[in-house]
Order: sequence, then structure tokens, then C-alpha cells
Amino acid sequence: MKGVIATRAPEVAVVDVSHGIPPQAVLVGALVLRQAAPYFPTDSIHVAVVDPGVGTSRRALCVETATGCFVGPDNGLLALAAEAAGIRRIVELTDERFFLRPRSATFHGRDVFAPVAAALATGTPPAAFGPERSDLLRLEVPVPTTDGRVVRGEIVQVDHFGNLISNIPPALFPERPFAVTVGSVRIGAVSETYAGVAPGTPLAVVDSFGLLEVAVRNGRAVDVLALGPGAPIVLTPS
Amino acid sequence: MKGVIATRAPEVAVVDVSHGIPPQAVLVGALVLRQAAPYFPTDSIHVAVVDPGVGTSRRALCVETATGCFVGPDNGLLALAAEAAGIRRIVELTDERFFLRPRSATFHGRDVFAPVAAALATGTPPAAFGPERSDLLRLEVPVPTTDGRVVRGEIVQVDHFGNLISNIPPALFPERPFAVTVGSVRIGAVSETYAGVAPGTPLAVVDSFGLLEVAVRNGRAVDVLALGPGAPIVLTPS
Amino acid sequence: MKGVIATRAPEVAVVDVSHGIPPQAVLVGALVLRQAAPYFPTDSIHVAVVDPGVGTSRRALCVETATGCFVGPDNGLLALAAEAAGIRRIVELTDERFFLRPRSATFHGRDVFAPVAAALATGTPPAAFGPERSDLLRLEVPVPTTDGRVVRGEIVQVDHFGNLISNIPPALFPERPFAVTVGSVRIGAVSETYAGVAPGTPLAVVDSFGLLEVAVRNGRAVDVLALGPGAPIVLTPS
Repeated sequence: MKGVIATRAPEVAVVDVSHGIPPQAVLVGALVLRQAAPYFPTDSIHVAVVDPGVGTSRRALCVETATGCFVGPDNGLLALAAEAAGIRRIVELTDERFFLRPRSATFHGRDVFAPVAAALATGTPPAAFGPERSDLLRLEVPVPTTDGRVVRGEIVQVDHFGNLISNIPPALFPERPFAVTVGSVRIGAVSETYAGVAPGTPLAVVDSFGLLEVAVRNGRAVDVLALGPGAPIVLTPS
Repeated sequence: MKGVIATRAPEVAVVDVSHGIPPQAVLVGALVLRQAAPYFPTDSIHVAVVDPGVGTSRRALCVETATGCFVGPDNGLLALAAEAAGIRRIVELTDERFFLRPRSATFHGRDVFAPVAAALATGTPPAAFGPERSDLLRLEVPVPTTDGRVVRGEIVQVDHFGNLISNIPPALFPERPFAVTVGSVRIGAVSETYAGVAPGTPLAVVDSFGLLEVAVRNGRAVDVLALGPGAPIVLTPS
Repeated sequence: MKGVIATRAPEVAVVDVSHGIPPQAVLVGALVLRQAAPYFPTDSIHVAVVDPGVGTSRRALCVETATGCFVGPDNGLLALAAEAAGIRRIVELTDERFFLRPRSATFHGRDVFAPVAAALATGTPPAAFGPERSDLLRLEVPVPTTDGRVVRGEIVQVDHFGNLISNIPPALFPERPFAVTVGSVRIGAVSETYAGVAPGTPLAVVDSFGLLEVAVRNGRAVDVLALGPGAPIVLTPS
């Protein structure tokens, strides 16, 4: 992909966001893209490839937003970041003149998305790539619920450090004092920092993207607590 | 290596192709280099370092080809890519004026190949680095055989996704219908896409570099099938 | 972090040194930074983030040296590289105008160090970031001892290849002949190259940063020998 971009758009700076998305993990890729994209310059071109349906009839998209374009497969990967950025136009990539020839059935990152991104970067307008579409595929991201003073969410992501990221933002926190319980592990109150508890101890903290996170100081919560995506996290009066 | 290049050729763009080649895996490095190099701009300088013989009398080379230069150890790492690109001249790197001083015995990537690549990038002609040589070390890459309507090849590489890459290109496919068997696992016909079978099921597909590949949908074939490089893959009438 | 720098200092080249420092491994990060920094251009800005105390009262620093600036947490991470480069001024990062707003309590790499590095790269002098300090936190790095013709050191680092890096430079080597023993494994004399012994055999070699290293040819010493940081390494007459 980088070779294609270097060939077709040699002046363009390419920045790697992550090579650590597990194979086929579209939701993880979508969450990481939503987290990272807002920190990049306006008018950036974000290319994302987690593409288990490559070669099938799944569509390929360029999504124009208020802050830049998102290019990738229409499998949910782009949806969270593009919605957060404000979708302006969705274009299906159909014009084969922009693709590599021959185009493989197994690596559209190289053969479709990279050359389209290079064309965008050198001034081709999104409308040139194909017809406008009215929607893109959205992922089912679990939504937290509140019931009186009890908030129920779940773990949706495990980060590079083994921290468990939930879907609960501080705006949903109940009246203090409250305690955090993840799976069957009662954590207690939310800490300000990782260093707020003894080494090896689980803690809850607001992560750097504004979501409640469960960590283990100097450890990997995913391993120590043996919990991962889907595990319930509950906030209750304490 | 990047620091050396940034110091000696500050205007040059450096692109990482892979940091995932296993230690000492010269053939894997050679295959990845052959796959990636054609997608980079003409006149790129390709630096490759998988170098278990560093510090010994193994030669260091700059191989000039029709589409760019390859710099690295003469242990087979450069041979497949350089031959595919069309070798024009092979130069042994002997002129120590281009090397870092002191030069370690254990990291010629930093002390020899990076500074030579920086010199090339800033206009030094290959002939300046040392004497021309008539050949470079070539790897024994297994070649598929055909016997009537039966084609026999083998797995030569495992990619990042755990897919098993064979040495059989579609040009050698027998008359259809035929079935693929890898190790003792009968796969059946070649699929068009990864999504052409049920999750967890093995499939055969033509990969993005034009070789027959065995994958497991949403899984890692290398683990699921417990097969790897050297495993036989056979195409037979079905 | 790269998005922040691309936004605030778009002309600046960003080079990744390593994403392989284990979580919380401040000493490993400090050693790698000391090894890599001297190979970068004078006036480089080195940003380092291994930051288990993020969000606490641990200070954030910009350390100006004879060859460039080091930006990161004051937990020892910067100390070895900055001292080797020659410290000129230590500035605590306190002026919040340079930070991202809001500033998280868990990711100062993005919210503090990257924006300060971008400000440095676009011409802000270090003194603008906050008050000068007289010292920074230093790490306890074990020092080798010599007792007649016996030298005692220890393993302080395991590199990407599983090699065991000691704290003994060649300047401390006793009169030859001498033998290297690591843990309870007697290695014998120092080899010139990795290829100086049979495959699978342990060897001692001077590594590319000038320290005695124990490796296993075509293997991972850390696994084969079951030794790691803290293991004793002794040089004795042979």
C-alpha cells in the first residue's frame, strides 16, 4: 500500500496509526479509527483496511466528512469515525480506472483503497470514483443503560496495554459515591491515575478517549482479571 | 538505521516494508522483498537486513536493477527481488569510507547498509562502493512439478494472517475441475474469495501476489491445519 | 501523538525508534533511547513515553542537550540518553498553553509531550515551557565490578532477537585469555561474530552498542538459557 501511494502521490506524508488490529476484528479497527482520526489535521485522508469480505460484493467506499475523507470497505470499519466527523457524502468506489490492474480478489488495500487515496491526495474529487450512496453499513456497538442510580455497560475493547475499555462515558456516571464492578470483580471508586492503587491491583479510570476503563497497575487487566469484550461493567451506589 | 539515513540523507523518504520477518529467516525476507518491491517507485533504494552471517566474510552488496537498487547482505536475501527486477550490475560494498566508523561486527544494517543507501540516495553511483561482481548468492526456492494432470508444489511462506502461501501460480493450474490437497487435508476447488466458505473452514485462493494460498476463513491456517513451510500441496483431477 | 504533531508541526519528519518497549519498562526504554539517540541528526527532538506514573505529580520535562532535546516524563526514561548527550538545561513542562485541552490523566504522550515537541520543532525555545530545574530523576543502572582478573556484571536488557545484553564494555575486559560465564552457563571466549559457533550454541560477542552480549546462534538466548535481566555474568581467567 505504501509503495502504491509513494508511486502515485509521492509528495504525500503517510502516517501509520496501528498495525495492531487483530485479523478480521472490524469493530476494534472501527473503535481505534474513531479514537485516532480527530487528532489528525483537517482534510486528512484516512485509509483503513480490516477486510474479511474482500473480493465479495461488499462495497468499497470513500466517505467525505467535515474533517476529511475515509476510504475502506463498507463493513462498518469506517462508520464510527465518519459519523463522529460528520458525514457529508458517501461514494461507492466503482470506477476501475483508479484501481491497480490486475486487481487481486484478496488485497484491495493495495489494489483499490491505496490508489484511490493517492488519487484523492493529488486532487481527484470523491465524486469521480463512483456513484453517491445514501448509507453505509453500521456496526452494532453496545449502548450502556441507566436504571435509577445503576449504570450497566460492557467492555468493548482491549487496548495495547491489556486495559479493558468500556462503553461508559463520565457523562453517564451516577451520583457519587458509586462503585465499579466488572464481571464479578468489585473495583470500587474511580481513580484519578494508574498510580492511584498498589501494583498488581485492579483500578477504574477514565481513559484518554473519555471512556471508563478497567486496568491493573503494572499489569494486564485482560489477563489478570480474565475478562474481555462483552464482560459486563456496572456502576452502583456505594 | 533511520537515524543514520536521517543524518546523511535528510531529504529522503524512508518507508518501512516489514518489521515482521522472523530472526534469521532469509528466505521469508527474500520472498517479502520480491513481493513488495515492484509496487515502489522506479529508482527506489531497497535496503534489506536479515543477516545472521553479519561480521563473517559474507559479502555486502549493492545490486543495480532496471527499477532501482537493492542493498544488503549477499546471503540470498536480495536475489529473488533483484532477479525479478532485472539485474544490471552487482557491486560488492568494500570502500570503508562510506561506512560508519567504528563499524560493529554485529549490526551492518546500521553501519554499512544504511550509510550506503544514504550515499546512493544523495547521488553516489553504485560503482563508487567497490568492485563489480559477476554473481550473487541465490536461494534454493522449491519449484512445483507437473506430472500429467497432477501438480505438486509446497508451502513456502506463512503470511501475517497465518495463511499458507504455496509456490504454485495459476499458470500451472491443471485443466478444471481439480481439487487442492495440502498435507493430508483435502480442500477441494479454488475459491474466488475468503468469504466463499463458512467461517472456520479451510479454503484455497489465489493470493494477491499470484500464488495459490491455503487459508482458513476467520482463522489462522498455520495453526488450524498445523502445517507450514515445506508441507506438500497437490492439485489433482476431481 | 503523530496526529497531534502532523497538525501542529506539519513540516516535521517523525521517525519511530521503537514500539517494542514492554509496558512500564522504563529502564528498557531508557537503554534503547541511549543507544539510538546518538545516531540521529544534531538538534533532533527525541520524544519518549513509558509513563506508568502518568497523571500523578511526576514531573514532565524537556531536557536540552548538546545534540538535541529530550521530551518525556521525569521517571528516569530520559536520563541515560540526556546525560550521554551532555545536559545543558532541564525545563519542567508546566505552561498549559502548550498542552492539548482537555488534557487526559492517562495519555500525556498525546496531550503533553507530542504538542510540546511540535512547539519545539516550530521554534519555541525550551524556556517557554516552564521553570528551569536543577536535576532529573536518574535510574539505578547496575555497574560492573572488577576484582583482580575477575569482572562481574549482569544482564540488563533483552533485545528483539532474545539476546542478553550485559553492562560490561570491552574496556573492562580482563587480560586474555578469559572465559565468559552467564548464570551457571560457561560460554568460553568472546566470539567475533554470531556465526563463530555452531547453530544452537551459546556465544558471547561485543554488541553493536559496545557491550558484552550473550546470544545463541540462530536461537533466542533468553529462551534457550532461561536467563534474563539481573542474571550475573562473570569474566574469569581461562
